[in-house]
Amino acid sequence: MVDPSVTAPETGTDSSVWVAERAQLNTQHVETIPFSALSGWDFDPGTGDLRHHTGRFFSVRGLRVRGAGEGAVPEWWQPVIDQPEIGVLGILAKRFDGVRHFLMQAKVEPGNVNGVQLSPTVQATRSNYTRVHRGTPVAYLEYFAGHRGRVLVDVLQSEQGSWFLRKRNRNMIVETDAEVPVHEDFRWFTLDEIRTLLRRDNMVNMDARTVLSCLPGSHGATARAGGASGAGQAFTASLAALSPAAGSAHSMTEVLSWFTEAKAWYGLTAGVVPLTGLPGWHRTSTEIAHDEGGYFRIIAVDVTAPHREVPRWTQPMLAPTSRGLLALLYRTIGDVPHFLVQARAQQGSLDALEIGPTVQCSPDRYRELPPEDRPPYLDHTLTLAARSPDRIRYDHVQSEEGGRFFAAENRYLVAEVEADFPVEAPSRFCWVTLGQLKELLRHSYYLNIEARTLVACVESLG
Amino acid sequence: MVDPSVTAPETGTDSSVWVAERAQLNTQHVETIPFSALSGWDFDPGTGDLRHHTGRFFSVRGLRVRGAGEGAVPEWWQPVIDQPEIGVLGILAKRFDGVRHFLMQAKVEPGNVNGVQLSPTVQATRSNYTRVHRGTPVAYLEYFAGHRGRVLVDVLQSEQGSWFLRKRNRNMIVETDAEVPVHEDFRWFTLDEIRTLLRRDNMVNMDARTVLSCLPGSHGATARAGGASGAGQAFTASLAALSPAAGSAHSMTEVLSWFTEAKAWYGLTAGVVPLTGLPGWHRTSTEIAHDEGGYFRIIAVDVTAPHREVPRWTQPMLAPTSRGLLALLYRTIGDVPHFLVQARAQQGSLDALEIGPTVQCSPDRYRELPPEDRPPYLDHTLTLAARSPDRIRYDHVQSEEGGRFFAAENRYLVAEVEADFPVEAPSRFCWVTLGQLKELLRHSYYLNIEARTLVACVESLG
Repeated sequence: MVDPSVTAPETGTDSSVWVAERAQLNTQHVETIPFSALSGWDFDPGTGDLRHHTGRFFSVRGLRVRGAGEGAVPEWWQPVIDQPEIGVLGILAKRFDGVRHFLMQAKVEPGNVNGVQLSPTVQATRSNYTRVHRGTPVAYLEYFAGHRGRVLVDVLQSEQGSWFLRKRNRNMIVETDAEVPVHEDFRWFTLDEIRTLLRRDNMVNMDARTVLSCLPGSHGATARAGGASGAGQAFTASLAALSPAAGSAHSMTEVLSWFTEAKAWYGLTAGVVPLTGLPGWHRTSTEIAHDEGGYFRIIAVDVTAPHREVPRWTQPMLAPTSRGLLALLYRTIGDVPHFLVQARAQQGSLDALEIGPTVQCSPDRYRELPPEDRPPYLDHTLTLAARSPDRIRYDHVQSEEGGRFFAAENRYLVAEVEADFPVEAPSRFCWVTLGQLKELLRHSYYLNIEARTLVACVESLG
Repeated sequence: MVDPSVTAPETGTDSSVWVAERAQLNTQHVETIPFSALSGWDFDPGTGDLRHHTGRFFSVRGLRVRGAGEGAVPEWWQPVIDQPEIGVLGILAKRFDGVRHFLMQAKVEPGNVNGVQLSPTVQATRSNYTRVHRGTPVAYLEYFAGHRGRVLVDVLQSEQGSWFLRKRNRNMIVETDAEVPVHEDFRWFTLDEIRTLLRRDNMVNMDARTVLSCLPGSHGATARAGGASGAGQAFTASLAALSPAAGSAHSMTEVLSWFTEAKAWYGLTAGVVPLTGLPGWHRTSTEIAHDEGGYFRIIAVDVTAPHREVPRWTQPMLAPTSRGLLALLYRTIGDVPHFLVQARAQQGSLDALEIGPTVQCSPDRYRELPPEDRPPYLDHTLTLAARSPDRIRYDHVQSEEGGRFFAAENRYLVAEVEADFPVEAPSRFCWVTLGQLKELLRHSYYLNIEARTLVACVESLG
């Protein structure tokens, strides 16, 4: 245990070395198994839904989706993960020598391609949370459920709207002055240290990324003299100290109106249907898959993780069939960087749509299609990435939630477009500043999880 | 037609006289009929849901509700109105001689106890809205669907969470400099004129109240020297020029955290079930009613309204069985008025709960119950209203939406509590300033419709 004084914690090792060490200690073995080898999970005889016999955790159900508005797919079906409970993703903060540190956990999840990733202090379900007064197995939960400390962030945010049905978690950051014991697999990190890890592949998990994206006023706060390229430096310097409205092309009232208008036009309606007989999908002994092989598969895994509280278990997981591209393009408008975001309808969203990055898709799915059927800006982004490395500010692979998604990796890209890139955009798109995105992040369900990861990526460039 | 110049419109008559005149011209006759006499509406043979044969308008379905958290009713069933489309409630604004005016409509609705009430410029369904480019029968819709003018307000807000399933409408105010023809049944009103009517019973309809509650920065803007009592004057003077955080007992971060915490603890889950066989409810030839006679009834009406586009039609309506009490208590904390609001779980809410007034219930339902089973602050409010008229700032009966609800009247009350009224409140309650409520109203689904009406009522006291 580290001495819990107010002086900087003696962590002993470089942060990335520490994560690598934890990975060596926290080994796990994950094997795909037939559904019949799942323990405690069954297909409901009536609906065919895949669920735990206790009703806990989550279930896999069917979803019928109907599109609305121009260009929408009129109707489709898909499996979806239903996990209605609100969990807590909490990061504990504390100042040492005046510098804010964050208590992060090295956590192994079965879906992680590389085992251990940096996670929030606490990832707790509602069941953990409501039991806190009766003693809880979740370390540090008392800071989040018990109101011990100053709340810096406390907001519900959605998760993958393509795979989850109206899933949301409570994103929290609580700052304490108390003495905090540092348990095994935990370590205090500065924001700089976390951001350095975020500029590598698969080191900072999705839950940590979303919570950190909600931290107010953090952009530019750690701007450094070296490291970034000249263009990157100018970029992050101009992001520093941005108030929400400073130099923005659109006022907040206009941005909010654009979002409301999009909801009125582009809403999807989604309703739960039985998983059995879902049109376009079939079930074998080992997977539920799309008849044409795309999108994702529902599989079952057997997990052995000797260092976790439950050393062995089985569970279903969602395994995407290809890597997604999440790209945020930006350009300066009146000397201020503006990011091109889209109002994106997602079937699992609580209220039809949220704000996503410029490009959010699986490029593989569009390879054979003519340009007019490909998502806007996809081709431009791929060309930029291939031919203009000097315009790429961020280009890393990050994992989605490793407790539900199997080897779900996406390419996250931040790129500066050419000076003659058109400011005019289709009505589903809008140019906004980082300050405006941060202001929206004070509230629920504006930015989707992919956009929140990209906000964290942009902020890592300081 | 009124001359559409920039000088103050010559409306010719006092605003309340004008409404009364319109009421005389816009007569209607509403008669309850058996369900079998409905034209175009049928009970679905499978589910028993009551719906229009075109699938348009709305349907009456069954809802199964499960409570969560301390004190919650564990489970109940009820009919619910399902109207998934997003409509537009739009008020057109224009300055005459520098004074902002609002174009209001005198509109008759079958559920109104008094026929005509003051309504927004436009109440349009999505079907109206999406047809706007092909020519629309809805006057003035082009200002809202066509982006003609400056947007002052554009936000989705929920409607009655006890009676509607996830219903929301787009609340808009658009200001124009164009020449605007004034059609029959329309008239330009100043904010003062509308607020004067709001200080009477059943003159300003629900749709107008919710839209006006979202108008930013309007409190105190029209403070007048006379009219209100001394205490009322001091009250409204101290509301003037309040920024969201000015003098508030809790920061916005704390208020948002309180709301998030409540969602994590008190969420309801609600799922649609067949209307046929709904436990605790029964259907006769003329009504769907609760077995014990409470809550509300679903009825059918025949409407004759010679001056409306469709002069005669039939439709189902929801008729509450008793009058509700919506009360907002306030006291000064550090010289600033603070309102006591609650995080209120409602079965039809999109995300489990919204912020409601201090008291929101049908007092009749609790008359026979012991004090500990009555809602917090109900007894205190009733005693205040009966014995301390000097503490009552607002006490009027207002109607809920007359297109869906039959004779649904509620008593709206704003009262100042005694100086020794405890600041400590149950965790579901929070003291907030008017500035904070107005800041929350920039975003969707914070304040429920009842709280929004009360914000409009408080602002009418200027």
